[in-house]
Amino acid sequence: MGLLARVGAGDLAALARLATYVENQEPLGLEAIERLYASTGRALTIGLTGPPGAGKSTLIDGLISTWRERGLRVGVIAIDPTSPLSGGATLGDRIRMRERPDDAGVFVRSMASRGRRGGLAPATAAMIHLLDAAGFDRVLVETVGVGQEEVEITRFVHLTVLLQIPGSGDGIQALKAGLLELADIYVVNKSDLPGADLLARELSGIAALSSSLDPKGEDAVPVVRVSAVNGDGIVNLVDAIERIGVRRRDASNLDRIARAELVAVMTESIRTRVEAATNRADIDRLVREVADRRQTPRRAAEEMLAALSR
Amino acid sequence: MGLLARVGAGDLAALARLATYVENQEPLGLEAIERLYASTGRALTIGLTGPPGAGKSTLIDGLISTWRERGLRVGVIAIDPTSPLSGGATLGDRIRMRERPDDAGVFVRSMASRGRRGGLAPATAAMIHLLDAAGFDRVLVETVGVGQEEVEITRFVHLTVLLQIPGSGDGIQALKAGLLELADIYVVNKSDLPGADLLARELSGIAALSSSLDPKGEDAVPVVRVSAVNGDGIVNLVDAIERIGVRRRDASNLDRIARAELVAVMTESIRTRVEAATNRADIDRLVREVADRRQTPRRAAEEMLAALSR
Repeated sequence: MGLLARVGAGDLAALARLATYVENQEPLGLEAIERLYASTGRALTIGLTGPPGAGKSTLIDGLISTWRERGLRVGVIAIDPTSPLSGGATLGDRIRMRERPDDAGVFVRSMASRGRRGGLAPATAAMIHLLDAAGFDRVLVETVGVGQEEVEITRFVHLTVLLQIPGSGDGIQALKAGLLELADIYVVNKSDLPGADLLARELSGIAALSSSLDPKGEDAVPVVRVSAVNGDGIVNLVDAIERIGVRRRDASNLDRIARAELVAVMTESIRTRVEAATNRADIDRLVREVADRRQTPRRAAEEMLAALSR
Repeated sequence: MGLLARVGAGDLAALARLATYVENQEPLGLEAIERLYASTGRALTIGLTGPPGAGKSTLIDGLISTWRERGLRVGVIAIDPTSPLSGGATLGDRIRMRERPDDAGVFVRSMASRGRRGGLAPATAAMIHLLDAAGFDRVLVETVGVGQEEVEITRFVHLTVLLQIPGSGDGIQALKAGLLELADIYVVNKSDLPGADLLARELSGIAALSSSLDPKGEDAVPVVRVSAVNGDGIVNLVDAIERIGVRRRDASNLDRIARAELVAVMTESIRTRVEAATNRADIDRLVREVADRRQTPRRAAEEMLAALSR
C-alpha cells in the first residue's frame, strides 16, 4: 500500500513520514498535497499564539481533551522559533508531552520556524492541508507571538486565539506587535493570579473599541478566562472557538485564506528565483558595481529584474 | 537652497525631513538616495541587537559619548518593533533621551518596524546610505533581537554587536534565534551582576567552538564585558568595533552588503507587483477556485506567475 493510501487509512506512522516530506517541501510532499488538496476543507483550523510562558502547552492539552470527549480528531502543528544550530532539540520535551501514542485521534507535529528550504509559510499551509485531508476535524497551529513570520502563519487559519497572562505587561507587547488586531478570541490564562481582572478588563476595552471602529460591524472579540492547569474555562473556550468557527468559514474568509496561501507560494517561488539569480556568477558584476558605488542598488535591482523576466 | 544641499551643509532639521521621505520610500526619498549613493561608503556601519531590557539605550549613550570624544559624528537608526496601531509612541521617550539637540555631530532616527509601505529592509538600507552621505562617521542600527525581520537588518552593516545580560537565559534564546551566529562581537552588559562570569565563559566557549568550525579560520568572536550604566568597558567595546571594522570593510564584505540590499530591493519590488496582481479583480477567479478546492494553491500560483510575466 502506498504512503498516501496508508495515510488515508489512518496510519499515523505513515502520516508522520509524509509530514516530513511536506515540511521540507520535497517532491513527494508537494505531489501529495496536489493529490490531497481536493479532499481538504473539512477541518476547522485554529491559530493559537501568545508569549513564551503563557501556558500554551497546557492549554493545548486541555483543548485536545475537550475535543476528544466530543468525538473529534485533533491535529496540532507547533511552530518552534529555533535556529538550524540548535535544531529545536530544547523543545522536544514539551512536544512529546502532548503526544498520545495510544490515541489515533491525536497527531502532534513540531516545525522549526527557520533554516528550512522553501520557506515556513508555504510549508505550514501545506501541513494544514495534510492534516485536514488525513481526517483531523480540528487543526491547531501554535506559534510563539514574537516574530513577524510566526504571526503571519495565522493568515492560513479560520480563526486565531491570543493567549495572555496577568501581570506580565504582555498586553502592551501584544498591542505593539499588532497581535491584538489579528485575534478572534482573547484568552486570559492563569486567571486566578492577581491582575487577571485588570487584564480581562483591558482586553474587553480594546475589543469594544476595535468593534466600534469596525466598518463591518463585527461582534467584539470575546475575552475568555481560563486556568489551563486545573482546566477551568476550557469548555467555554472550546465553545467560543466552535461558535466563531462557524461564522469564520464563510466565503469571504475562505477567499482570504486562499489568497494568503497564493501570495505565500508565489512569493516563495519568486524568492527562490531571485536568490538563484543573485548567486549566478554573471550577477557578480552588478554586485561589485553597487559595492563600488558605480551603480545604485535600485538601478541594479531593476536591471536584474529585467534580466530575470527575459 | 534645496533640501539635499541643506543636508549636505549639515542642517539636521533638513536631514530629519529628508529622512521621513526616505523612511516612507516616497519619490523624493528614492530620488535623494539615487543622487547621494555615489558619495556613500565612508561611514563604518554597526548593528546592535539584543533582547528588550539588555540596556541597549544606555550602551548607545556611552558609545555616542566615546565616539564624540574621538571627534567622530554618530548617526543612530533605532528599529522599533511597533504596530501601526500604537504608532511607536511608547518608545518616544527612550529615543528622545539619546538625542543631543545642541550637538550637530549626533543624529538619532527611530523607525517603526511594521506597517510601512515599501518594506522595512529597503528603507533601512536607504536610511543608512542617507546618514552615510550626510557625513556621519559611525552609523549604528539598533534592533531588538526578537523578530526575524529585525535581525535581517544586520545584513546591511559592516559588523554586528550582540548585547546580552547575565541570568536571563537569553544566551539560549539567542542561540535558538540564530543571533549568536551573525554577531561579530558579544557584549555582556551589567557585568557586575552575579552570573556575568558564567555568561562570559559560555559566550567565549561558543565563540571558540564556532571559530574552530569556521573553514575560513576567522578569529573567534571577542567577548567584551561592560557596565553601560557607569561606563565601564565602553572604551574597550569601541576599540573592538574599530579594530574589527577595519577587517570587515574588505571587498568580500562590501559585496555581501551590496548583495543583501539588491535582494531586499528586488524582493520588495516583486512583492509589490505580486500584491498588486493578487488584488486585481481578474485574480479573484483563481482565489475562488483555490478556496473551493477546484484548483490547488501551487497550480494557481504558477498560473498567476505566468500571467505576471506576460
